[in-house]
Parts: sequence; structure tokens; C-alpha cells
Amino acid sequence: MALNRLKSIAQQVTGSSPPPHPFDPLTNVEIEKAVEIVRRDHVKLNFNAVTLREPAKKEMLKWLEEPSQTPRPLRIADVIAIAPGGKVCEGLVDLKNETIIKWEALEGVQPLITMEDLQIVEHIVRKDPKVIEQCVLSGIPKEDMHKVYCDPWTIGYDHRFGNTVRLQQALMYYRPHVDDSQYSYPLDFCPIYDADKQEIIHIDIPEVRRPVNQAKPNNYHVDAIEKEGGYRTDIKPIHITQPDGVSFKVDGRVIDWQNWKFHVGFNYKEGIVLNNITYNDKGAVRPTFYRLSLAEMVVPYGNPEHPHQRKHAFDLGEYGGGYMTNSLSLGCDCKGAIHYMDAAFVNRAGESTTIKNAICIHEEDAGILFKHTDFRDESVIVTRGRKLIVSQVFTAANYEYCVYWVFHQDGTIQLEIKLTGILNTYAMNPGEDTKGWGTEVYPGVNAHNHQHLFCLRIDPNIDGPNNTVFQVDATPGAGAVGSKENPYGNAFFAERTKYSKVSEAISDYDGVTSRTWDMCNTNKLNPYSHKHVSYKLVSREVPKLLPKEGSLVWKRAGFARHAVHVTKYDDDQLCPAGRHVPQTSGEPSRGIPEWIADGEASIENTDIVLWHTFGITHFPAPEDFPVMPAESMSLLLRPRNFFTKNPALDVPPSYCSTPSQIANKSQVLDAADKVSKLAVVGSAA
Amino acid sequence: MALNRLKSIAQQVTGSSPPPHPFDPLTNVEIEKAVEIVRRDHVKLNFNAVTLREPAKKEMLKWLEEPSQTPRPLRIADVIAIAPGGKVCEGLVDLKNETIIKWEALEGVQPLITMEDLQIVEHIVRKDPKVIEQCVLSGIPKEDMHKVYCDPWTIGYDHRFGNTVRLQQALMYYRPHVDDSQYSYPLDFCPIYDADKQEIIHIDIPEVRRPVNQAKPNNYHVDAIEKEGGYRTDIKPIHITQPDGVSFKVDGRVIDWQNWKFHVGFNYKEGIVLNNITYNDKGAVRPTFYRLSLAEMVVPYGNPEHPHQRKHAFDLGEYGGGYMTNSLSLGCDCKGAIHYMDAAFVNRAGESTTIKNAICIHEEDAGILFKHTDFRDESVIVTRGRKLIVSQVFTAANYEYCVYWVFHQDGTIQLEIKLTGILNTYAMNPGEDTKGWGTEVYPGVNAHNHQHLFCLRIDPNIDGPNNTVFQVDATPGAGAVGSKENPYGNAFFAERTKYSKVSEAISDYDGVTSRTWDMCNTNKLNPYSHKHVSYKLVSREVPKLLPKEGSLVWKRAGFARHAVHVTKYDDDQLCPAGRHVPQTSGEPSRGIPEWIADGEASIENTDIVLWHTFGITHFPAPEDFPVMPAESMSLLLRPRNFFTKNPALDVPPSYCSTPSQIANKSQVLDAADKVSKLAVVGSAA
Repeated sequence: MALNRLKSIAQQVTGSSPPPHPFDPLTNVEIEKAVEIVRRDHVKLNFNAVTLREPAKKEMLKWLEEPSQTPRPLRIADVIAIAPGGKVCEGLVDLKNETIIKWEALEGVQPLITMEDLQIVEHIVRKDPKVIEQCVLSGIPKEDMHKVYCDPWTIGYDHRFGNTVRLQQALMYYRPHVDDSQYSYPLDFCPIYDADKQEIIHIDIPEVRRPVNQAKPNNYHVDAIEKEGGYRTDIKPIHITQPDGVSFKVDGRVIDWQNWKFHVGFNYKEGIVLNNITYNDKGAVRPTFYRLSLAEMVVPYGNPEHPHQRKHAFDLGEYGGGYMTNSLSLGCDCKGAIHYMDAAFVNRAGESTTIKNAICIHEEDAGILFKHTDFRDESVIVTRGRKLIVSQVFTAANYEYCVYWVFHQDGTIQLEIKLTGILNTYAMNPGEDTKGWGTEVYPGVNAHNHQHLFCLRIDPNIDGPNNTVFQVDATPGAGAVGSKENPYGNAFFAERTKYSKVSEAISDYDGVTSRTWDMCNTNKLNPYSHKHVSYKLVSREVPKLLPKEGSLVWKRAGFARHAVHVTKYDDDQLCPAGRHVPQTSGEPSRGIPEWIADGEASIENTDIVLWHTFGITHFPAPEDFPVMPAESMSLLLRPRNFFTKNPALDVPPSYCSTPSQIANKSQVLDAADKVSKLAVVGSAA
Repeated sequence: MALNRLKSIAQQVTGSSPPPHPFDPLTNVEIEKAVEIVRRDHVKLNFNAVTLREPAKKEMLKWLEEPSQTPRPLRIADVIAIAPGGKVCEGLVDLKNETIIKWEALEGVQPLITMEDLQIVEHIVRKDPKVIEQCVLSGIPKEDMHKVYCDPWTIGYDHRFGNTVRLQQALMYYRPHVDDSQYSYPLDFCPIYDADKQEIIHIDIPEVRRPVNQAKPNNYHVDAIEKEGGYRTDIKPIHITQPDGVSFKVDGRVIDWQNWKFHVGFNYKEGIVLNNITYNDKGAVRPTFYRLSLAEMVVPYGNPEHPHQRKHAFDLGEYGGGYMTNSLSLGCDCKGAIHYMDAAFVNRAGESTTIKNAICIHEEDAGILFKHTDFRDESVIVTRGRKLIVSQVFTAANYEYCVYWVFHQDGTIQLEIKLTGILNTYAMNPGEDTKGWGTEVYPGVNAHNHQHLFCLRIDPNIDGPNNTVFQVDATPGAGAVGSKENPYGNAFFAERTKYSKVSEAISDYDGVTSRTWDMCNTNKLNPYSHKHVSYKLVSREVPKLLPKEGSLVWKRAGFARHAVHVTKYDDDQLCPAGRHVPQTSGEPSRGIPEWIADGEASIENTDIVLWHTFGITHFPAPEDFPVMPAESMSLLLRPRNFFTKNPALDVPPSYCSTPSQIANKSQVLDAADKVSKLAVVGSAA
């Protein structure tokens, strides 16, 4: 790749000219440079990942404080590769000094499965004689093997195969026609693929056989809809336009909007990473979070029959929320005035690749921000809100996850996730009993119960890195009805439980007490309330991990055992289920279970990380098929006792009148938008 | 009022020419006619309410089925009035036959407090010598009584005064200047007002006195913001336009949008009422809900000190969510193309009044409705969603409630409520300990802990009126890890508990099992899943009622003791805390506690009503003051096993390509909006 072209691509990715911001993802140039340096010593490697090793926090905090006085943190590439024979190795490369500063061969671990790893399997499967045999048994003629498809998943863990060989399981499907949705035609057997040998080493075949579905296709593409009566024609366009442009500023990958300022990072595993989030509070730039990201997820399926227990994808740790991210398009994924950022990755061959428009940044109207009317004279204020959204969409085989990081003018940060895409499906015979483990969403199609459990990594920086977490429960006051302290029985308060050590912070959600968690700076009190300045985690979609204690999922997804864990900050602790997730046995459990092993470790008034597992339990229904209407879930990080007043009071109101203006009939502020109109509809036109 | 003018106003309210739809609220003409008929027999009355007595459901279902073959249900006015001397009476008036069909005097009940009732108190308070004395004691010169304000609340219940005299408690405030927010200057005493005598009969004076706050004003109006540095100037407009008009049709008050059809009613107590909600499922008009409304709410405050136990407003039953509703304006409360409906009420004198633009109906873009990309070839579908919103905003003294009934294209109905406005505040001395019952949100201002608990009345009509409710809990499968039935410990299922009788349906929320409630038609199975057709109540903001069992709030707000109650349908059961709420003692508890007294009553496969209490617990913080950024909560009614597939598949996609189109490089569907643009920002311009 010519250097000029690389430079221009680098600019697309970082948005800035070199040198990149220390938080910037590696540019295409840097990725190829890292590969080149590695290859000086290690010639034959297939690359799995080349990504930014983020600067040590201590060093970075210093640089952020005084960038001109502090040495710029080095650009370090974190490299993972697989040598021929399946030997996994990883290391760190200093891009400035062009040296490998760490290199090691790993035993018994498997790095994540890349898109290239996935793409190969279907070709192998189609040619495998034993797979062809099973297809024929399922009712598919052997000359129709081009109609056989598979979604290759990591094997998860299967004790029969362990983790020394790199494996995938091929969830099998059939398409009568290339454009038919294969998820209506699941096949009942499951080949196991060896990535090093590139061959099928085993096929799991169920005792009860289920021939390929005979139902007619169930599609969602244009031709199918046209054949079924066509599209509805009664939706009139809604245009969203920003004639004067957007209200945010972009400097490289630093976004400045409505007092918020933050850096937008991106990596192959977590996808979007938000760093150094500050809020300008009347001139004082106050840190809120050092780093926010979705760090892991697990999707356990609830059918106990072999081999469905292997279906519990760690979509981030096993495939990568960055690697699977979509290239977004204007007016489809987002409307309005959009700023995109690209993503640069390495491919297997060590070349850099680019996903265009991987990240979407845009504003939306947010409805009423605040309103109050005085009932006496109808003097009123109405102020509309605005939000800024940093988003990505990633496709994990059948499913899509739309991730929206939403900044609000009132100081709140919201994480919204929309689930859409297609249900994972399995074959069923006519009249077969699902036994409650799934739902027949279409004749012959069994969609199994599953959970989507996400692990949000919150690195708080509430007016500084030394923070403390308190559990907050809405609790009735002491004393029975009629007692001196609670005569009317109406007393209630926010019961606060401080998490002083790691073991105390292992906690679950409690819907009855509307449990929340405050991340506090106990060194600073709100001057009015005299309470600790804090951000509160408000999260209401927090199901219990349904696989039982001691089960495979419980062991592998240790982070999902509880809603909240708190650990002391450690530069090396980014991956709550471990750095290399595929084929971990869960013995020992990697990630959070290791980090909380010392339950006595202090997490009080120190640099901490809060790990929050949330999500939904999904019992499928026919309305989720053949493609699922987006199901949304949301959580909030809300400032509490952080500001001395509503920080959005200076957002210009749409309308404001005061009692004296009403009384004197003097001029009021009327800044309502002039483009909204009365609807002209039906006979009332 | 001239008949022609009345006719034209009637049209504004109903949107249709006479005769009104049987669900239509009474028109101004009908209200005045009802008053006239009542006055023939009862000359001297102050009117409290004249509202539609909705037709009996049995009769109405018949009419809806065959409107041309069935006698039109009569228009009946439900009248509540207070005779001089405080005698309460109520009755029903047949508007067609111009007869009073029922009339009775009531003992020991008080109908709700109207806006007119509220408006009077402040004038009385300012002139009362004992109140003036207290103001002087608080540090307000007696010549400044025009600077003294009060928010009159119903007294709730105070055992010292009972319910034979109609009372209000005056929460007292001071304004240094007429435009200052009084909520920064709460006074510490509380006069009790007798509405019949129009005088102050008592003042509650605390033991510890708290002189009027000396802090400087804390305002949110234009002058205040200008003085503090002015408004931010960096918000560029977002224009939302519908150049071809809206996608809904209006016939009177019947709205037709995206297969949905429903009637929009409105009454003084509940505000918006949605009736006869149907979904056109490929030509089959399928009923979903007969009636949806917010039926009641209670806002208990958690400070145990007298007289704060009286602060537990039933904003609907004691004041009326319709009576308190705002007149909405274009481009302020709602953006885009808006259809408004007015509301007609009676005043004290028996004249009809109109609130213009009481209800807003508009569409919004709803982001990605569904999306899927095939990772093999990047063939993709992206379809954007749309929602229809029927909304109102009501002001309950200091607070505002924004109520949004949202219809989605996937068959979901969402109720979103935004809380904004101003915290109820109480005086505190410098350095005073709030004892955890409140927060000092501004110097000298104590905002007490409180809950907002709403009671949603759901009258399901899932493919017919005979429905059954099932509780659904996500539950691990039986069998330990390693057992035959659950070898891998991953089994889980939706545990369904049928509510056969009233006592079984008294249930609480369980966040751990992600509890939901299915409203099923057990007479009809989904042809694919063979499960009951149903709508699922998904609600995650369901705190426990914090006032204790046996407390005043617990007794008066019986509906709030549990998240769900189910009763057999009864035309007379609309008000979960009783028809006349002010000054109920809770002995006996009115409303739901009476209706569930017969726990053995069958609620299986019959016409039922599900009452759902949800809400939030609010521990105030300074960022909620002096006016609160909107806090949102939301619940869903989701079709499950109701449709045979995603009912929104025929919503035109923004972009759709198929594998064969990708392979053949043939034309794909690209209908992305052409008005979205790349943001041109900062130096990257």
C-alpha cells in the first residue's frame, strides 16, 4: 500500500493528522508497521489482531492533565497471531522505537474467531463427505450442497475436545433458493471444524432425526413482500434536517458537545470505547468517566439437550464487537446530519483493512427537557432537549446488536442497546414437543430460549480517580405504624451501603428496593446537599444468570453471576471473561472471578472499576420471525449531587413567560420552531 | 352561549359533526344541556364535574360489532355537584330524553378539588389574620402578604377533621419578587382551609420554627439565566418536517394509523382514554384492548414528621389529570405535523369551558425497526420504524407529568411518562439535619423523598373479551448440574402461573425472574407456536409501596400495595382508589381492596381488568432544582404469539439487497432518505 494512500486512510480513521491522540485506535499505517516489525523476527504468522495497547492510566492521566509538559505516551501495538501448526503467540510492539517489547507463545488458549476464520468453514463443510452424507439423510440431494449453509460459531467449550485444537461448530442450514432465509431451514446435525487442519473432525448427530423443513420460505426481502401483497403505501416521509449544521465539534476523535467532551475510541473486541469523558461545569472541566465500554457479553441458550449447551456465544470476547461491526449508511441507520468514523483492522495476511462508517455520531431532538406551568397565571417555561448519540451496529451471525451511547444535556449518559436480526433456530419435527425450551416460531422451526447478558465496564473518574461505590436501596423507615419515630408509617429513605472491599461489592439487582449504585467521590461534598458528588448507575433490565451454579456457562461467564462487581483499577483488566475466550473450560474461571479472588482488597476511595451485567431473557414468539423487530433496553449514568443545580438551565427555551409578563401583557420569549405545522388530515383538512 | 358557537366548539372537541361517537367525551353543548336538565330540579348547585358516563360495555361491544344494526348507546352525563352548605350530590342525566335517571345525595365523601377550588385558597390565606401572624413570625412583613403564595392540596386525610367538611391544606411559600420561584422559599406552617366556609380553620405549626429562607433567588426564567451568563449559543436547529402530511387518518376522534385503529377519549379525571384498540392483521380487524387509561396515582412523601404524612397526593382522583391538563403548543411540546384535540369541561357555575390543544397526536421517526446483514456477502435489509404518539401534559401544582401513549408498527403499545416541573419543598434551618428524609437541594430548601406510583387500568380484549392472565417468570430448569434432565445446568424456561381467581392475581414484581404478565385468550392458539394468543405487560419500574402496611397511605392507596391485581370486569369499577378520593380515611379502603374482597371470584376466561401499579422512588438531588430535567419511565404491552410473524415486514425498507442481487450486481432497493447529510463540522469542513 502506498504511503500516501495509507496516510490519507490514517486521517479517515483518526480524523486527525499524525501524531494520533494517545487514545486513538491504531491507524492503517501503524497496523502495517506493527506487522512489519513483528515479521522481522517471526516470518510466518497469520494475524488475529493488531490493536492499540492503551497507555497506562497513570501515565495517561498525567498527559491529559498537562499535555505540553508531559512526554507523549508511546504508541504500542498489541499483537495476537497464530503460527502454522496452530501455535498462538502475542506481544507488544513499540511503534516509535520499532521494537518488539514483549513476545510470548501461549499454551492452551485460543484467540477470538475473526470474520475470515468464519468465512472459510462453509466452503469446507460443503465438500466434506460425512457432512454430505448427513445432508442426504436430511433430504438434501448431494448435488444441492451449494444450498447448504452454516453459521460457524466458536465451539464454546466441549470437554471432548479441550482447547489445544482451534475449533468451530457449524450450525447448519439450508436454502431452497439463494435468497431464502436459511433460518427457516435449520438442519439437525452439527459438524466440528478444526481451523488449523481446515477440516471437519467430528459431527454431532442427535438421536432423534429431523429431516429438512418442508414449509414454504418465510422471507423478508423485497420480492417476498411484493408477492404477499406488497408494501404499505401510507407512510409519509419525516424529514430531519439541520440546515445550519450540527452542534458538535470534532477534533480528531475528540467530540465537544453541550459541555461534554470525550474521545471516541474503537477496538476489534469492544467496539466503541469512550475515554476521558468530562463535563464543563461553568468553566470547570470536571472528569466523570475515564473509560466506558461494553467489555463482554454472553448469550446462553436454555435447551439442555446436547449439543445446545455449547450455544452460549461471548460475542465480544469470542468474535469481537469491532470486527463484526457494520458499515453504516446515511438515511438508513441514522437520519439527520451525520459524522462517521472508520475503523482499521489487520487481516489474517497482516494487511490493514478499513470498515468505512463504522461509528455514527449524530444529534437527535429529545423532546421536552423540562417544563413548568404556574397554575395561577399559566406563566410557563418549555425547553426542548437534544441528545448526542455515538453508535455502531454489529452483526453476530444471525443477530444484530445496535449500540447507542447517548449524551444528554442534563449530565446523564445513557447506554441503549437494540436487539434485532434473526433468531438462532433449530429443526423440529411436525408435532414435536419443544418441552418449554423453545418456541415453534414457524412450522418446523424451533427458536430456543436465551439470554443476552452484557457486561458494561465503567471506569469512573468522578472529580478524580479515587472513587467509592455505594449500594442504594429505597427502604421503609424504622418503627412500626404508630411508633414515635414513624407515627404514620410513611417514613422511607435511601439506605446506603458502602462497598469497602471487593467481597462486599459482589451484588445482585433488587427490583423491590429499586436498587441503584452510586459511584462517589467521598473527598468532595455537594455544597448544597452535603452529600458526596456522584454518578448513579440506574439499570432495570438485570435478569439473573439462569444457567445454574457450577454449569458450563456459570463457569465460563463468571462476570454474569452477579449484577455488579467492583475491582481496584488495573491496566491489564479489560476483559471480564478473560483475554482469550474461545474454548476456555471455566476451570479456572477467567477474568472477574480471578480479579475478585482477594475479597479483602480495598476498593474504598481508590481507583476502581465497576463491572455491570445487565440484559434480557428472550422467550421467542412468532412475531420475532423471520426478522425481529428491534427490542430495546437502556441504562443510565445520572449525576446525583454532582451539580449544584440542573445543568441544562441555560438551554434556550422554546417558550418562556413570567408572572409579571403575563400581568403586564409584556413580551414573552417565543422561540418555538416555525417549521412544525398543524396536521392536515382526512376530512378535517 | 349561542347555539351556533356551541356547535362549532362541539366540533372542535369531538372532531366530528353530531351525533358524537358513543365514546366521545361530552361536547360543550352536551355539558351545558346536562347542567340545564339538572337545574330544572336542583337550582342552586356548584358543579364539580359533568362528564360522559361511558356506555355499558356489553351494549357498546354489540354496537361496535354492528353499528348499523344496533341501537346507538344513549349519551349519559355523569354529574357531580356540591350544594350550598357543602352537600355533595351526584347523578346521571339522559341527554336524549332530557331526564335525570339517577340522583342522590352523598354523605361523608368529598369529590375532587377543581382548579377553581384551588385558585380561591391563596386569596383567603393572604387575608387571614392568623396566617399573617405566622408570616410575620417567619420574617415576612405584614404589608408583604401579596408576596405570600400557597399551593393548595387536598388535605388527604387528617383524623382530627374527618371528611364531613371539605378541606384543603395550604403549602406555603414566599416570593421576594413576583417572578421568583417560590419553591426556594417554602414556609414552615400549614393552614387548613374550609372550602364551604371559605376560611382558614386551623394552622399546623411545627415545634421547630424555620424563618423564611434568606438565600438569593434560584430561578430558571429568561432574566435569571441572562444574568448568570446567558443561554448557550451552540445549539443548531433540528427541523422535523412532513412535507406530504401525516400518515394517520382522523375520523372524529377515531385514529387510523399503520393497521392500528382506536378512539381517543378524554375525561377530567384520567385524562386520555384509549378505547377499542384494534389491529388490522392482513384484513382481519383484531381487538387488542377495549380501554386503556391511567386510572389513579399516589405520590407518598417519606418524611414522618407531622403534617408531612398528609403529603400523598392522588393526582388523578383528588385533582384530575384532565382538569389539570396543559394547552399545548406547536414546536414547543411537540415537533413535526401535529393534530390537536380540545377538551371540554364544566365550571363551578355550570358553564362549559374548553382547554384548547389538550391532546397532541403526532408521528416520530423511531430509528431502526429491524436490520439484518448476511455476514457472507453483506446482503442487508434496514427498515426504519415510525411511532404514533398520543400525549398530554398535566400540571399538578409544582410537578408536571407528560403522558405519552405510543403506538409502534410491530404491534407494541408503550406508555411513557416523563416527570418534570418542580420539587415539592419544605423549609429547613441552616445546618439542620434532614435525617435522611430529604435532601437540601438549595440552601434552606429541603426536598423530601417521595414515590410516584401510577395505576394503569388495562381492559384487555385479546381477540375477544374473555381473557386470562398468566404470570411469567424466567426460571432455571429442574435438575442439578450433571443430572439426566439438565446435564449441563443450562436449562431454563418461562414458568407460567395461571391466575384463576382474584386472590391468586394479587402479585408483586420480581426483577430477578424478569417477571411479566401475559393477557391471553386461551380459546385461541397461535397456529405456529400453539401458544395462547396474548399481549404481554413488560414493566420494569415497579418499586414497592414504601409506606408500611396499616399506614395511612397503605390504607388509602390500596391499589398500590401490589404491582398487579386482576378483577372481573364491572362497568362501575373505574377508580382504583374509589370514586371520591379526597378525605377518604382508608377505613375501609376504597376501590381495588373492595373489588378483590371476594378472592374466590373467577377471573379465568372471562371479561377481566388488569390493574398495574408502577412508578419510581425519587430521592431528590440538587440537579433536580430549581426545575427538574425530565425523568422518563416506560412500560410496554407487547404482542406475543398474537401474530404469526413480525407484523411490520411490509414497512418499506430504507435499503434491501439479496444475495443474488449482490452476486449478479443487479439493482437493489435503495430508498434511503435523501435529506440526511454528512455533518460538516469544525476543521474537517
